[in-house]
Amino acid sequence: MSYKIRDISFAERGERSVKWAEMHMPVLMRIRREFSADKPLKGIKIAACMHVTKETAVLMETLQEGGAEIWLSASNPLSTQDDVAAYLVRKGIHVFAWRGETEDEYYSAIKTVLSGHRDITMDDGGDLTVMAARIGINAIGGTEETTTGVIRIKALEREGILRYPVIAVNNAETKWEFDNVHGTGQSALDGILRATNVLIAGKTVVVAGFGHVGRGIAMRARGLGARVVITEVDPIRALKAVMDGFSVMKMIEAAKIGDIFITATGNKDVITEEHIMEMKDGAILANAGHFDVEVSVRDLEKIATSKTDLRENLTEYTLPNGKRVYLIAKGRLVNLVAAEGHPSEVMDMSFADQALAVRYLLSRKLDPGVHELPREIDARVAYLKLESMGISIDSLSDEQKKYLESWMI
Amino acid sequence: MSYKIRDISFAERGERSVKWAEMHMPVLMRIRREFSADKPLKGIKIAACMHVTKETAVLMETLQEGGAEIWLSASNPLSTQDDVAAYLVRKGIHVFAWRGETEDEYYSAIKTVLSGHRDITMDDGGDLTVMAARIGINAIGGTEETTTGVIRIKALEREGILRYPVIAVNNAETKWEFDNVHGTGQSALDGILRATNVLIAGKTVVVAGFGHVGRGIAMRARGLGARVVITEVDPIRALKAVMDGFSVMKMIEAAKIGDIFITATGNKDVITEEHIMEMKDGAILANAGHFDVEVSVRDLEKIATSKTDLRENLTEYTLPNGKRVYLIAKGRLVNLVAAEGHPSEVMDMSFADQALAVRYLLSRKLDPGVHELPREIDARVAYLKLESMGISIDSLSDEQKKYLESWMI
Amino acid sequence: MSYKIRDISFAERGERSVKWAEMHMPVLMRIRREFSADKPLKGIKIAACMHVTKETAVLMETLQEGGAEIWLSASNPLSTQDDVAAYLVRKGIHVFAWRGETEDEYYSAIKTVLSGHRDITMDDGGDLTVMAARIGINAIGGTEETTTGVIRIKALEREGILRYPVIAVNNAETKWEFDNVHGTGQSALDGILRATNVLIAGKTVVVAGFGHVGRGIAMRARGLGARVVITEVDPIRALKAVMDGFSVMKMIEAAKIGDIFITATGNKDVITEEHIMEMKDGAILANAGHFDVEVSVRDLEKIATSKTDLRENLTEYTLPNGKRVYLIAKGRLVNLVAAEGHPSEVMDMSFADQALAVRYLLSRKLDPGVHELPREIDARVAYLKLESMGISIDSLSDEQKKYLESWMI
Amino acid sequence: MSYKIRDISFAERGERSVKWAEMHMPVLMRIRREFSADKPLKGIKIAACMHVTKETAVLMETLQEGGAEIWLSASNPLSTQDDVAAYLVRKGIHVFAWRGETEDEYYSAIKTVLSGHRDITMDDGGDLTVMAARIGINAIGGTEETTTGVIRIKALEREGILRYPVIAVNNAETKWEFDNVHGTGQSALDGILRATNVLIAGKTVVVAGFGHVGRGIAMRARGLGARVVITEVDPIRALKAVMDGFSVMKMIEAAKIGDIFITATGNKDVITEEHIMEMKDGAILANAGHFDVEVSVRDLEKIATSKTDLRENLTEYTLPNGKRVYLIAKGRLVNLVAAEGHPSEVMDMSFADQALAVRYLLSRKLDPGVHELPREIDARVAYLKLESMGISIDSLSDEQKKYLESWMI
Repeated sequence: MSYKIRDISFAERGERSVKWAEMHMPVLMRIRREFSADKPLKGIKIAACMHVTKETAVLMETLQEGGAEIWLSASNPLSTQDDVAAYLVRKGIHVFAWRGETEDEYYSAIKTVLSGHRDITMDDGGDLTVMAARIGINAIGGTEETTTGVIRIKALEREGILRYPVIAVNNAETKWEFDNVHGTGQSALDGILRATNVLIAGKTVVVAGFGHVGRGIAMRARGLGARVVITEVDPIRALKAVMDGFSVMKMIEAAKIGDIFITATGNKDVITEEHIMEMKDGAILANAGHFDVEVSVRDLEKIATSKTDLRENLTEYTLPNGKRVYLIAKGRLVNLVAAEGHPSEVMDMSFADQALAVRYLLSRKLDPGVHELPREIDARVAYLKLESMGISIDSLSDEQKKYLESWMI
Repeated sequence: MSYKIRDISFAERGERSVKWAEMHMPVLMRIRREFSADKPLKGIKIAACMHVTKETAVLMETLQEGGAEIWLSASNPLSTQDDVAAYLVRKGIHVFAWRGETEDEYYSAIKTVLSGHRDITMDDGGDLTVMAARIGINAIGGTEETTTGVIRIKALEREGILRYPVIAVNNAETKWEFDNVHGTGQSALDGILRATNVLIAGKTVVVAGFGHVGRGIAMRARGLGARVVITEVDPIRALKAVMDGFSVMKMIEAAKIGDIFITATGNKDVITEEHIMEMKDGAILANAGHFDVEVSVRDLEKIATSKTDLRENLTEYTLPNGKRVYLIAKGRLVNLVAAEGHPSEVMDMSFADQALAVRYLLSRKLDPGVHELPREIDARVAYLKLESMGISIDSLSDEQKKYLESWMI
Repeated sequence: MSYKIRDISFAERGERSVKWAEMHMPVLMRIRREFSADKPLKGIKIAACMHVTKETAVLMETLQEGGAEIWLSASNPLSTQDDVAAYLVRKGIHVFAWRGETEDEYYSAIKTVLSGHRDITMDDGGDLTVMAARIGINAIGGTEETTTGVIRIKALEREGILRYPVIAVNNAETKWEFDNVHGTGQSALDGILRATNVLIAGKTVVVAGFGHVGRGIAMRARGLGARVVITEVDPIRALKAVMDGFSVMKMIEAAKIGDIFITATGNKDVITEEHIMEMKDGAILANAGHFDVEVSVRDLEKIATSKTDLRENLTEYTLPNGKRVYLIAKGRLVNLVAAEGHPSEVMDMSFADQALAVRYLLSRKLDPGVHELPREIDARVAYLKLESMGISIDSLSDEQKKYLESWMI
Repeated sequence: MSYKIRDISFAERGERSVKWAEMHMPVLMRIRREFSADKPLKGIKIAACMHVTKETAVLMETLQEGGAEIWLSASNPLSTQDDVAAYLVRKGIHVFAWRGETEDEYYSAIKTVLSGHRDITMDDGGDLTVMAARIGINAIGGTEETTTGVIRIKALEREGILRYPVIAVNNAETKWEFDNVHGTGQSALDGILRATNVLIAGKTVVVAGFGHVGRGIAMRARGLGARVVITEVDPIRALKAVMDGFSVMKMIEAAKIGDIFITATGNKDVITEEHIMEMKDGAILANAGHFDVEVSVRDLEKIATSKTDLRENLTEYTLPNGKRVYLIAKGRLVNLVAAEGHPSEVMDMSFADQALAVRYLLSRKLDPGVHELPREIDARVAYLKLESMGISIDSLSDEQKKYLESWMI
């Protein structure tokens, strides 16, 4: 069996970690029982590029239980949990991932998992699908976990080089309304706490972007006692932030008053030299977007007069004006690098969507292009989640259904 | 000039009221200045069926300033502000509306405003458009303000009897993300406070429905110190409520523990005899949905052993089990009947959307059917609102735009 | 029977109002049942100076049920509910109060209720007790409901002219931790909504003072979606506000950015000409402190170029700079004048404290001076309140009590 | 120089950690500058028993800078940061502390720091002061940081064996209103996140005790999206929790529905076998009180059929009924053991209080017994904190002061 990981002896610790995740992923575990009985993925080869975390392990084992053979690389050079990687190898999954890959190693790993016949690509960020498109790989179908990835894959579609159907799992409500809001919301703050141990109460937290991720972070920062300032480029989102009681201003103004800055825009150069030079001594910078371009690390490196690693995942930069700013996790995804990524509970839903998306792709012939996950699958995942929490909800009577459909009062 | 209102002598009080609204509708007032200069509605006849409130007055005057002739009826028999109606008549608008219309008078008023040639229909709830469709009236176009109305008009479209394009103003983000959430959220609680003066803190408030209206109400009830219980029929919405920290259960369970019940589903029979008989002595019932069918007033009337009007908009029903429940505003829209409807600030946005929708309808030829308001108009309204609040936001650099469009990292 | 009220024919409406209050005052109603059985106030004459509201009526009837004869005047010229006054007269209580008394009439009414032998004084604000001290009236004891009143009565004590014991009901935890925070918090916002109908979400609300009242208002304003700015003179309170996520600044800075200003300091001249001249066009001013001196109405009247009553309880002042500011309820207590004062539920507790304080005063000989309500009475009121809500709590085991008392681990 | 620590070579890492704390303790650093200039502690010998953390290091260096010689032991066997201990030794402080002391080693270390002449005792929990009292040590004075410690030292006072004055730093508002609420509130949740990585949103979090610590935890749990249930033995606190929108019930009821349990009572046996046996599979138990007796670890150990260390600070217990519960940090202080204790920002205030309390003790002769920190010192610390945040507040005019003091309106 081929694989490339840090150390296979970490497997036992990885197993304990995965068991803990299983306890908090009841929906996926229920689907695993279905997959185990029905083997809907029998003989299928999957190339996956995902954050190699304990939750991903639960998904991989579920797919394997459904009959699939899996090749897995990391979707971020810094996010692999080496003990989980070891555990997965022991379980028979072909893992090519370790924390601290170089850029070359990172792309090489993706290339490796794509080598040979693959029926399904499972992606988180688009790197795998983009490479598959460039190489010219065909497949029965693919799935994509993130907003960023869906945007990139739609670009492939527009360029006419997307050869197979890809389900935008990201767009499932049970994914983006929970994962982006609640998962990143909590774990981004968790990452900041672990990296800095600062008190959030009384601080001014600047959140760049008021999409789902930004809103989740803003909500949690406020929940921890911060005054929250939002920056946005979209007037409707900006107005939502205002009505939710947040302050809204330009970044150049926010730069002067913020204690902690968190980017969540999906764009680059959100915080650059001009902003950094306005900041207060002690300002803390973190990025919750997919790529490490939102806070311009390049600008920081360029202007800093000195640089010290102060704590794990915390780097002090001294600026020409004598002030110091603190960058968390080198500007990479704060919740994955400085904390443990999304809690298992939210991954439970998006990975249930993933598992059911793969089964759906295999159950019918879809045209090449980006597809949505059917609403019934989405609703079923929500229903199973509620059930796992012991929550019952009402259902419509026939008369109520009729009423809703009628326009006659 | 033809009109039918309560008392023209109320006009002066109405004027003071409208002036107060104008102060809180800066976006619409800015559009009025544009309309006044450009007269884009010159010679246009509008049939409108709207809640006759001070905010509607600001819209009507804006349309009139744009050159239109307006015939206005009420979209709810109990929601007319008689002083505003008088003021509008004095301003030359053909108003057929007074608080406390009978059902016959209500429909008759709608028929009146539809009589004769009409270029534009402007509707709030669908009654006007449904009648126009039945009568066979044609028009250049129409607009519709509410979710319920859009559903009903889509039903007309499916039945093939919608003869002209109707813009679902309701679906504009600057409408439903603000009006439904923040407008109804606040004003429903305001109506409950005015009708009951109870302390919300420490109460268990049950909100039926976790759409935008329900979410807004839940948020405000929590903001006033209540424990909030949500009932839902949609598992995804139910799960959102859970993740937002609300309790979720079936209505039959909620009935036993709730102090205040607020329906916001758009459906009928949400609270019926079986629920009412489980309630605690003193339970308060209110409806925030469009029609008075969500709380089954019919059931209440049927089972009550006595009935007393206790305060304005508050009726006490004694049940066969000796307990008492209190119905607000006869089960009609609590925020309109027991309070003053949406605050001017939210109507500013949806009525700016209305005014711009009318201009848009006149500026091009759309096919019959339900249409969305173009995103640019939506964003412009948000932008003007921010501007009126003195808030500036960032804009994308060319390089950032390019980055967002690229899939090449 | 002697009395002076607006109109005795309002009694029936007053009765319905009082019945509604009784439903939300279960603790006081339970004490009424005890008083009715035991008659602990038999033959006692009470002079009371309280806001004549439906809740006060429930207290007065409870005291009467305990055997007392009651003489009641209003503790604010604008706060009397005339229908409740009429109801109380019909019930045999000597009421001298009507909405809209002149200052002379106000003090004259207090003098009237103090004429003749009085065993107990019951006060809200200190005017009654101060007058009793000046006139030289003696009594078995007194009670005082408010912070302001307690401060004034302590001043009497320091001056050596307080002749009898007064229980600072205000200092009971079941009073000030609920009445001041939750009662005024909600009802001040309620008064602002009724007077203005503005949208709170997205507004900047400036609260002067972060004592219990200010904190309650700040919490509710935030709960309705406002950004809240606090002004304070005490650094510890200011820091608490910061840590609770509020902005804190000087009033002169807050004046420039606030949309709504609410004073809750107990002091005068909190908002004066210098602040008003910095305000935005449309700023709204309200006072939640006891006296109408916090917003300097004198300054407003002095500088305004014109003045219009725009809505009930809302006066527009045009300033020399052309801007307009809006004063609610003439700067008097916004929650009493523009809304209905504290909700019955909080008055339930402080009036239960009042009733039990009177019984306590009669049950033992206390020295002249200001006394606290015994903690057992305080705790009993809380316990009864929880019981009325159907809530059970844990109790300490003997072993746990012993543990708490020991210092040996 | 005598000391006993884990490894002196950790000193450099400890220094980086302490530098980071200094950045977030501006008030204490300002006092250090004063101490450095004035040397108010010259020649004074201090015996301190504190959590040996980076923040304590900033305090110790400040005292040293003031002229003191310091002997320091740990106030908890599991809370020492070994790198900080090493750093302090390098700075010339006599440290006897390492993470993972046995009980014997723990008390032996306290005995060591008490040996020889000591002028000041500085305590956190009371172990040092209790031992000093038993041994018969005298001193100029002492300070105590915690509620638990103050209770224990008051017991010493009642027993007549407290020989010198001890300032209850715990009772300073700048300590207990911030440290207990905001410090423990955040860090207890932080500890739970680090130990478990569970999603808080949607969970039912049961908090035992609604004192300051419990309230802080409840507030933060809610801020992270939990439904929060409070258990209490005091009816007034219970009612406060209800009015703040929390559910309140007995622990035996809460046990059935909770996902996470956090004790904050200062009492023992808050969660025992009878509660544990009612819990759901997967329940998580944590203690935020000073001693590891709130969750009965003894009961857990007694009934468990198996026990596994699943993650750092997370132990799985399988119960006789097959369910599993998870204990964090062996039931010891969750925020200290599983996270990093209070953030530096709150320790800044209580340690500023500590430093100023020592100076105050040396500046005058106080009687033996427990004393409060003077309000002026308390207010000064708050003022300096606001100043360090760039926040200015109003001050009273002479006329306002006079108004407040007068009772004449």
